[in-house]
Amino acid sequence: MSIRIGIVGYGNLGRGVELALRMNPDMELAAFFTRRPPETLKTLSPEVPVYHVDTLADFAGKLDVLILCGGSATDLPRQTPDCARLFNVVDSFDTHAKIPQHFAACDEASKASGKVALISAGWDPGLFSLQRLMGQCILPNGNDYTFWGTGISQGHSDAIRRIPGVVDAKQYTIPVPQALQRVRSGENPTLTTREKHTRECFVVAQEGADLARIENDIKTMPNYFADYDTTVHFISQEELLRDHSGMPHGGFVLRTGFTGENGETPQLIEYSLKLGSNPEFTASVLVCCARAVYRMNQEGQSGAKTIFDVPPAYLSPKSGEELREKLL
Amino acid sequence: MSIRIGIVGYGNLGRGVELALRMNPDMELAAFFTRRPPETLKTLSPEVPVYHVDTLADFAGKLDVLILCGGSATDLPRQTPDCARLFNVVDSFDTHAKIPQHFAACDEASKASGKVALISAGWDPGLFSLQRLMGQCILPNGNDYTFWGTGISQGHSDAIRRIPGVVDAKQYTIPVPQALQRVRSGENPTLTTREKHTRECFVVAQEGADLARIENDIKTMPNYFADYDTTVHFISQEELLRDHSGMPHGGFVLRTGFTGENGETPQLIEYSLKLGSNPEFTASVLVCCARAVYRMNQEGQSGAKTIFDVPPAYLSPKSGEELREKLL
Repeated sequence: MSIRIGIVGYGNLGRGVELALRMNPDMELAAFFTRRPPETLKTLSPEVPVYHVDTLADFAGKLDVLILCGGSATDLPRQTPDCARLFNVVDSFDTHAKIPQHFAACDEASKASGKVALISAGWDPGLFSLQRLMGQCILPNGNDYTFWGTGISQGHSDAIRRIPGVVDAKQYTIPVPQALQRVRSGENPTLTTREKHTRECFVVAQEGADLARIENDIKTMPNYFADYDTTVHFISQEELLRDHSGMPHGGFVLRTGFTGENGETPQLIEYSLKLGSNPEFTASVLVCCARAVYRMNQEGQSGAKTIFDVPPAYLSPKSGEELREKLL
Repeated sequence: MSIRIGIVGYGNLGRGVELALRMNPDMELAAFFTRRPPETLKTLSPEVPVYHVDTLADFAGKLDVLILCGGSATDLPRQTPDCARLFNVVDSFDTHAKIPQHFAACDEASKASGKVALISAGWDPGLFSLQRLMGQCILPNGNDYTFWGTGISQGHSDAIRRIPGVVDAKQYTIPVPQALQRVRSGENPTLTTREKHTRECFVVAQEGADLARIENDIKTMPNYFADYDTTVHFISQEELLRDHSGMPHGGFVLRTGFTGENGETPQLIEYSLKLGSNPEFTASVLVCCARAVYRMNQEGQSGAKTIFDVPPAYLSPKSGEELREKLL
């Protein structure tokens, strides 16, 4: 019997989950839930019913796991605990500073219902967090480095779009190759914000707009750009659509450490992602986490969890025997 | 109260464990066990008692975890199940083909004793296995690639030393950069043994030995060298000691896959290790696995486990709250 999944929210991430489920034959996409009028939602899976999110309670006991595909700013802080009162859930809550509070709310809800709520799955938080954890455990005498990119930052692109005279924009976060090399060399550098990443902006301006002023507004924007070396390119809307419509992302987690009697032996662990599509990859992580959530709940666990709590074998459709024989 | 550890076997790996424990203040090195006359063993920790391995049974209940530092060929297949009848144990059993049988023997022993036996910890098997597992779970539509090196292969160095006329030798396994690049590019190449790795040998020959014959013996040796592009350098014993006494190793695990409606979106996960000392790094992995074993047993688990079964948080001395706040 396959694991019955409901997708809540149908943006880029929800669509990514829909596609990822097709590659996991032990799971079945049973329903979509949306805040829009259900009949207006055009999914890639016309055979799968679409319901209004307000009807979710009617599906208690009929779905094994809900994958929550809303945003971290306003959707998930309410939606994940609410859903955890009736369902096993997975979300990709990514506001790092608010994770403890989100965890507590989800833990209370899911302990009350006897369900499992896996929060902050994805790649950062998620896979990158796991690398940071393991790096520290294996090499206690060492340093962590996380670099992001090359990839589109939605938040920074939005910030540019709010500048008067800007029609559209995309912003790439780019790790500085020299900084990466210094880390890999075992130098253990202390890197400033400016030394770690550069920012490259592709901007469509209104006809007749003051380009010099827009460029200055971007480069001096506090928090977002002022602390970085930023490049601004003005291009046409056609060029933006043609060349910058993808949602690539990625990054690097490095742990440099020393072992040996006098800490003389350098050791380096490096993990990196190069993603053609950020939401499709995040969705792929959520889907295998949904499998783990289902299993953890089947064996009687409940409460909030993170990727730190998941035995990796639970992510896989294969048996322990098969994993040991083929992959260990 | 700290976790009391016993080290069984004092070669390079045992010494690595001894050193790694110094960086983990929640653990305490309580005893060494050796097959040699205990008084002849010179450790780096004169304050820690050394006992003969035959007295191990006297320590049942007095040690929390034994870290077994013997070899996979003859020591561990007997030692791990034997020790698991009385203790929680961790080993680095690395004969991939015999893992299922070793697991079964350890599972029986540790279930009978109510202890946990974590086998095949280290980096391959171990961390690399974990990456292979997670890569397959996240990107089911994809391919795995594992490359080893640059590093010393003990087995290949030994094979060269057995050739008549050879006094000493070290062999480096080296991943072919072009092959790595082809994998990273998303080409999904099918790579032959020769295309993936080269072998570089540093050989000390007896005075007057026939160097051309030795070189030919190496390059044509079945299984070990015949399928590879192999380079042989003859050097002096002094040069070998000076330049090739380290035990560096490392490697790469890559998962290339595709997501999207028509499998059109390339995704790449890459994990790599660059190790100044293979045994010191392996030891560092064993030590944090010993912490996990202790905890799993404390909460009532028993039986054989692998890294696939360990919730990552159990590897860390930090609390769940602290991990979520600082590392997620």
